[in-house]
Amino acid sequence: MTGTQIVGEASREYWLTGLHPDSPPTTTRDNAANRLLAAARDAFFEDGYQGTTTRAIAKRAGMSPAAMYIHYASKQEMLLKICLLGHRACYESLLAAASVQGGAMKRLRSAVFDFTAWHAHNHVIGRVVQYELRFLDEDNFAEVAQVRRDIHEVVESIVREGVRTGAFAVSNVPATTLAILSLSIDSVRWFPSHSVSNEEELAAHYVALVDRMVAVTT
Amino acid sequence: MTGTQIVGEASREYWLTGLHPDSPPTTTRDNAANRLLAAARDAFFEDGYQGTTTRAIAKRAGMSPAAMYIHYASKQEMLLKICLLGHRACYESLLAAASVQGGAMKRLRSAVFDFTAWHAHNHVIGRVVQYELRFLDEDNFAEVAQVRRDIHEVVESIVREGVRTGAFAVSNVPATTLAILSLSIDSVRWFPSHSVSNEEELAAHYVALVDRMVAVTT
Repeated sequence: MTGTQIVGEASREYWLTGLHPDSPPTTTRDNAANRLLAAARDAFFEDGYQGTTTRAIAKRAGMSPAAMYIHYASKQEMLLKICLLGHRACYESLLAAASVQGGAMKRLRSAVFDFTAWHAHNHVIGRVVQYELRFLDEDNFAEVAQVRRDIHEVVESIVREGVRTGAFAVSNVPATTLAILSLSIDSVRWFPSHSVSNEEELAAHYVALVDRMVAVTT
Repeated sequence: MTGTQIVGEASREYWLTGLHPDSPPTTTRDNAANRLLAAARDAFFEDGYQGTTTRAIAKRAGMSPAAMYIHYASKQEMLLKICLLGHRACYESLLAAASVQGGAMKRLRSAVFDFTAWHAHNHVIGRVVQYELRFLDEDNFAEVAQVRRDIHEVVESIVREGVRTGAFAVSNVPATTLAILSLSIDSVRWFPSHSVSNEEELAAHYVALVDRMVAVTT
């Protein structure tokens, strides 16, 4: 399954900190820093960043606030770490998928499948990241925003390439890229739903829709 | 502009409470209940529902907490009112757009244009509603969820009709409907962006993409 692949350093770190939905429970149970991070993610998910105190995070992790500060200076630092781990793992996975051998259509299909499955599979951290991103301090936000631009560029470069080679007919490359990414990212808001609860079915469906969005019709 | 049209009772109420982005400033300035509602929206937007106290809302509105309780029993009541006003105005606008005379393609284009422009134009309340919806109490959530189902049904019925008459070729009607709505709704997360900052251009672009998603290709 695409969303679970370990494709490189960033995915490996994401996995090892225990934030990945399929990380073994021991990665958080046996490591205080990881346990705090998972507690922060769950607290931000349930109560929002602003509604969460560092005390509440420590309590969820079964630790004292004093013990928490050994690992993290603030909840802001935990939010940054969660955002960076999530974004970097997603970027790395997308980059690998987009690097498949073949023309623009094959590469776009691979990228959209991966990006959609990733967001559906990782919708808990995905929702935290997308909803709470606005609470990052300016410098921290800038760091995450760079990864977001890199993600955008992976897809935009494929769309540009497809237009250049005549494989795609697209009237507005940046706006179409934004639409493709937006469609997949928004799955964190509602996935799983009554009508779609399998992430690979969703990914395949979105590949078919994006195919149509960029296709040359004669 | 679609997002500013007053099409019926719900849009009128949304406009008169001063939450509409183009409502005259007097609607909130001269009415304490409206001023509190606008203050609640801004506070939820900036600090999240859980990060906002009733005291902070009263302060933003230039009132005492005691004076606030004359108008609203709790911040939960304010969140519900904001969610209902936003959803009902959006639904009413969509319904009017979907009722245009013509075949399924014409009706879908009208609906997608309206729904996209509405979300882009009303992205502030849209973001509050989409991000803070999870903090509604069970009964309140159920009330808003019904409007969400009605919204979904407006679009799904058009897609179903288009498939029935052969105007559309769609492999999975509920999943395609979800994708269409998801694409437009997600604009509240990022609109305006560097590459797309005009809501009607965005709406027209999404109409063209959705056209392709459902088109019969020969």
